[in-house]
Amino acid sequence: MDCLQIVFKLLPNWKREAEVKKIGYKVHGDPFSTNTRRVLAVLHEKGLSYEPITVKLQTGEHQSESFLSLNPFGQVPVFEDRNIKLSESRAITQYIAYVHSPRGTQLLNLQSHETMAILTMWMEIEAHQFDPPASKLTWEQVIKPLYGLETDHTVVKENEANLEKVLNVYEKRLQESRFLACNSFTLVDLHHLPNIQYLLGTPTKRLFKNRPKVHKWVDEITSREAWKMACDQEKSWFNKQRRN
Amino acid sequence: MDCLQIVFKLLPNWKREAEVKKIGYKVHGDPFSTNTRRVLAVLHEKGLSYEPITVKLQTGEHQSESFLSLNPFGQVPVFEDRNIKLSESRAITQYIAYVHSPRGTQLLNLQSHETMAILTMWMEIEAHQFDPPASKLTWEQVIKPLYGLETDHTVVKENEANLEKVLNVYEKRLQESRFLACNSFTLVDLHHLPNIQYLLGTPTKRLFKNRPKVHKWVDEITSREAWKMACDQEKSWFNKQRRN
Repeated sequence: MDCLQIVFKLLPNWKREAEVKKIGYKVHGDPFSTNTRRVLAVLHEKGLSYEPITVKLQTGEHQSESFLSLNPFGQVPVFEDRNIKLSESRAITQYIAYVHSPRGTQLLNLQSHETMAILTMWMEIEAHQFDPPASKLTWEQVIKPLYGLETDHTVVKENEANLEKVLNVYEKRLQESRFLACNSFTLVDLHHLPNIQYLLGTPTKRLFKNRPKVHKWVDEITSREAWKMACDQEKSWFNKQRRN
Repeated sequence: MDCLQIVFKLLPNWKREAEVKKIGYKVHGDPFSTNTRRVLAVLHEKGLSYEPITVKLQTGEHQSESFLSLNPFGQVPVFEDRNIKLSESRAITQYIAYVHSPRGTQLLNLQSHETMAILTMWMEIEAHQFDPPASKLTWEQVIKPLYGLETDHTVVKENEANLEKVLNVYEKRLQESRFLACNSFTLVDLHHLPNIQYLLGTPTKRLFKNRPKVHKWVDEITSREAWKMACDQEKSWFNKQRRN
């Protein structure tokens, strides 16, 4: 057994589980925002309860003084675990995945330093290669219309070309590995979900469907129960909020 | 003692040290590139030897078939450790910092899950808040002139405004903490160095100098011996290459 496996066996998880039940996590966010959904997806994969606190982006609540005291960059989500306040969705997902490593879906590949390195590299690829064009395409085709703004088709064309280059690399990678980092679903695949889900409702969908391995991967990750729960605003957010 | 401290004590580092000496690391990159320098900085902080392999960006070598077989995204650096080939500079720095945790400068804050979470959050802040405007400013004012291209002053103005917002948050953070993640120098501060160093040679320098705490932090991190070594192309790259 590898040292990292030993430490995760040593971690006082029973204590954490009891604390979570007693204190609960708080998620300040908007259930429609891609970054908030990234965090909700992990909480559902781990079967963890949380208190949702709505930050209304449409009314600019994320720029209010009280929200800026939680995150001076004025972005959702913010995650609260007792005295810790975390922003940046990918930092939050990693924190939850590490703390609750043995619980629910195994989202990290902790067998060795080498498997962790591959996982980290693919997390960086999502953040620096996939996310920039994917986020711009979501903004132009999904968010701007919601705010009554016009889609800029030059920006769409440019970012679709960039996304295609990334998906060509993914197509090749998925010929040798069932998921991006390894043969099991990890945080890497999960981090892609929010943008992919929105883009499947736009003409950009064809870029995923045109590539057989990417198509299969997209089908598999978007049909996970935890992800469906994260996207179901009523169940994942508003019902919970009413109960609190 | 925390579990994470235990595991890092358990790690067979003596074995790793011997292996590194015997096999050595390879860095494929360009000593002038910001992403390559990020990796060199960690290797120098840890006092590790490496074999530099030049990838000539100016002649488009990063788009050659042989380089694309190392990194299909065609970007430097690529780091080789025996059978592992890693791209994405921030994944490489994390890998080296974890594997050589007890050696040289302590670049991670491993006391607890909480301190690691804060470190991860600040790494994400560098990548998603600081890097986008800082990289564009470096590109416009440092790289484009090298390629005989003209600086776009509208882009500079826009990105300086974005960088100012980030540095205002940093100024406040550095009033309560000597470095960004905690009171000691970590990977977070190190990840900022390549862009800051280039921007200190441009008019953007004033944005760092105008803020007393940011100014002090920039002075402190840019004067580290390991960083000076990473920026000294002769010592960090070409002399080593001649010896191989």
